[in-house]
Amino acid sequence: MRDIKEIYADIPHIEDISQHGVYQSKRTKATETFAVRTQARNKVAADLKEAIRNSGLRDGMTISFHHHFRNGDNVVNMVVETLAEMGFKNLTMAASSLSGVHAPLIEHIKNGVITHIETSGLRGELAEQVSRGLMDFPVVFRSHGGRGAAIESRDIHIDVAFLGAPSCDPFGNANGYSRSEEQTISCGSLGYARPDARNAGHVIIITNHIDAFPNAPYAIPSNYVDSVVLVDNIGDPKGIMSGATRYTTNPKELVIAKAAADVIRASGYLYDGFSMQMGSGGASLATARFIRQMMLQEGFRCRFALGGITGQIVSMHEEGLIDRILDVQSFDLIAAESLLKNRFHQQIDSCYYASYLRTAAVNQLDFVVLSALEIDTDYNINVLTGSDGVIRGAVGGHPDTAAGASLSVVVAPLTRGRIPSIVNRVNTVVTPGSTVDVVVTDQGIAVHPDRTDVQAKLAEAGIRLSTIQELKERAESIVGIPDPIRYKDKIVGVVLYRDNTVIDVIRQIDEDE
Amino acid sequence: MRDIKEIYADIPHIEDISQHGVYQSKRTKATETFAVRTQARNKVAADLKEAIRNSGLRDGMTISFHHHFRNGDNVVNMVVETLAEMGFKNLTMAASSLSGVHAPLIEHIKNGVITHIETSGLRGELAEQVSRGLMDFPVVFRSHGGRGAAIESRDIHIDVAFLGAPSCDPFGNANGYSRSEEQTISCGSLGYARPDARNAGHVIIITNHIDAFPNAPYAIPSNYVDSVVLVDNIGDPKGIMSGATRYTTNPKELVIAKAAADVIRASGYLYDGFSMQMGSGGASLATARFIRQMMLQEGFRCRFALGGITGQIVSMHEEGLIDRILDVQSFDLIAAESLLKNRFHQQIDSCYYASYLRTAAVNQLDFVVLSALEIDTDYNINVLTGSDGVIRGAVGGHPDTAAGASLSVVVAPLTRGRIPSIVNRVNTVVTPGSTVDVVVTDQGIAVHPDRTDVQAKLAEAGIRLSTIQELKERAESIVGIPDPIRYKDKIVGVVLYRDNTVIDVIRQIDEDE
Repeated sequence: MRDIKEIYADIPHIEDISQHGVYQSKRTKATETFAVRTQARNKVAADLKEAIRNSGLRDGMTISFHHHFRNGDNVVNMVVETLAEMGFKNLTMAASSLSGVHAPLIEHIKNGVITHIETSGLRGELAEQVSRGLMDFPVVFRSHGGRGAAIESRDIHIDVAFLGAPSCDPFGNANGYSRSEEQTISCGSLGYARPDARNAGHVIIITNHIDAFPNAPYAIPSNYVDSVVLVDNIGDPKGIMSGATRYTTNPKELVIAKAAADVIRASGYLYDGFSMQMGSGGASLATARFIRQMMLQEGFRCRFALGGITGQIVSMHEEGLIDRILDVQSFDLIAAESLLKNRFHQQIDSCYYASYLRTAAVNQLDFVVLSALEIDTDYNINVLTGSDGVIRGAVGGHPDTAAGASLSVVVAPLTRGRIPSIVNRVNTVVTPGSTVDVVVTDQGIAVHPDRTDVQAKLAEAGIRLSTIQELKERAESIVGIPDPIRYKDKIVGVVLYRDNTVIDVIRQIDEDE
Repeated sequence: MRDIKEIYADIPHIEDISQHGVYQSKRTKATETFAVRTQARNKVAADLKEAIRNSGLRDGMTISFHHHFRNGDNVVNMVVETLAEMGFKNLTMAASSLSGVHAPLIEHIKNGVITHIETSGLRGELAEQVSRGLMDFPVVFRSHGGRGAAIESRDIHIDVAFLGAPSCDPFGNANGYSRSEEQTISCGSLGYARPDARNAGHVIIITNHIDAFPNAPYAIPSNYVDSVVLVDNIGDPKGIMSGATRYTTNPKELVIAKAAADVIRASGYLYDGFSMQMGSGGASLATARFIRQMMLQEGFRCRFALGGITGQIVSMHEEGLIDRILDVQSFDLIAAESLLKNRFHQQIDSCYYASYLRTAAVNQLDFVVLSALEIDTDYNINVLTGSDGVIRGAVGGHPDTAAGASLSVVVAPLTRGRIPSIVNRVNTVVTPGSTVDVVVTDQGIAVHPDRTDVQAKLAEAGIRLSTIQELKERAESIVGIPDPIRYKDKIVGVVLYRDNTVIDVIRQIDEDE
């Protein structure tokens, strides 16, 4: 640290200065009107290539993207295609997550434009090929909180952030929705993009809609933004938002949801003033519906709902059952519109949400309801690789919320088709069993052996419990024990825990005959 | 920059890791309810001394404060008194500004607790004594934008920020008002405190009112806050807020205000969609009133009003004349309450407002109306030292807005008592004449010679202009030429321009017979 007193201890040419006049001869201020300036002297680049040229991007640097456009995203493909045309090589992509729509990256990995990927998840053909050894260097998987922390601590140094936004003004105030009356795209919260905007060396907003300055309130403030690019197509609304999230009618999911709600109530975490995070899966949404009924019966209110936000949470907020919404990601159009109109629906970023570096909102959760692809008898959770060993998921906020919440409830059907959900050893540890409290399936409930307090409360409430071993055996008795997955030695993915230490690796699958 | 690929190129003990189990034996998660946690495991320190002990503060470090409590502030005195009791020495105080109420600092400067001060302004007995040579090292004066930029660039490295807040939750989400129904103190925007919160090594919120988590929306997010101290008295509401700002009935001020409004209209910066910043002085407020009448006549709306915000701006917002308010400092209770309730009354920080490092909101201003203690014939402005050479003012956003606005209008009475406002040479250059466009007095208007465009437009509108030389001579003909101020050699203050280069120095006054 430079001592502030050194800075001024010997002020240069102080005698000259005290004669005034240093600034007198300079008259460089702009005098056109704001109306003219907003048109003629703004941050809007002629096109994406100009913005990239002005960014100082060089081979070997790190670029970043957010995943609020989900499987409708057009920003990643457009930017990487342009970077390839411009001849860039050896770039690291630090995306908050990647989806099936990003399969065109395969070509740009093969031709050396992208040589390393950091992400929360991978799906579709890109994930398939990564699992088959596409990349020389393993993909690094982080949780949402881990990524925020890594950006804050500069473990991830972003040189140029390319951030899609459904609205932006000519100076960079950007939002996940538009207040314009025109038909526009909406993704709601830009929570995963905000650490990038705050910390990147250079920030480019890519938008399909320019609103008047100041586009306030804003998700990303103009003083973090270096340039704005207007394009026709940032993404497909159908892929970005799937409309209002529907309630499930799947009987298995309803059984799980009712059991999860009963567990939450019986274990003492449902009371007046509680806090919660609910997922967007069918069983999670149905659990929230049962929780709502219990709240109405008991006269309980929820102090805050956290995380990925659905229309169901919004309707509970609007009927006065939830005081505050802390929204890092809006899952549907109702949530996005609520963020625009409801003052106590607050947009938060991934650091506020879940960074381990400072206290995070996940640490104030009474309970979280989480899904799983696999659960093992040590309660470790896999949400990243399928039963064939291929990457097909995302770390997301799973380990962050499991660690933060007083009660983490993992819901899953006991079996999916011919695949058991409870196994001896998960393929990939994403969330360590030490942070998982209860596993709820359609055919039994198991409580982590360390949570004797929860076991006692559930027993008192007459809820029948199984051991996780029993659940595993029940699953195996239905579908048998699958053949082990065959792997090669090559490591294709490294999974980091939320504190950015390595928790597991993913190996190339072996399909040789 | 550390290459991200180096970080993972050789992952330690990767074979061990891939056997899983690293996290299995650790179970440290908290399981008490959120309701219990918010009481028992929060950031609230037992008292200020405990918070200071936990902060890692050591002799020679830099502490910071904001001035949103203005002359009602009790935080600076309370903290420095406590630091003195605890035996701290040689601290730098980086305050956003200091007022008359801070006279007790004199004692702590004399006893070596505070050995350097950075501030926007100084008033009262502390200012008097600084002007008489109290401190060994000169006080450094910065503009609001300059301070924000210096904090962002780490020219000012804040070790511990002590930030007063009228409400805070147990985990640190802090606001300049409270949504509680209890009677609480209100200061509105915490715009000058936010760069400190974002960049300080350690952040302590000092509040007299703890609200429920999450105190959202928040001015300062909890993840920037390390501890919270609850005290009885953070400040005197009467000194913090002077109630609704009143319209002037002073005829001299009304003449100036009418002339300023006419100048703004005639020079072409009043049109549908314009932007403005108005001060809180009598003439500025009256100017806004005339501007409002013109807007109603012409059917014009203002796109945004910036800066220190008064109830007058709020009422224009509420009647639909101003689309957006960007508020770095709320000048009265109406403004503070509007921030709480009006969604398009947006809180901004001093970097967003005025930092020269990135585009700032001041750069989007059509016009700003500013006051002055002295104006010289080069249009340089002094708002910091009196006609006796003693410090009695603040740099504030004066140089920031003058440089940013397309038309900067400086309003002042031609004379104040026996003191001329227009002089040959200002005592202290705060705002360079190269950024000042029009000077409006009760006895004539002068336009900077470089603004021939404005001169032509005003002439066309039939507005009679004087030269600045003529105004100076008119003032001198009324009150004469004051005796020159006698100074000693010792430099007691260094004035930095908004880019943090030295623009002037302030010398010790010479009162020897």
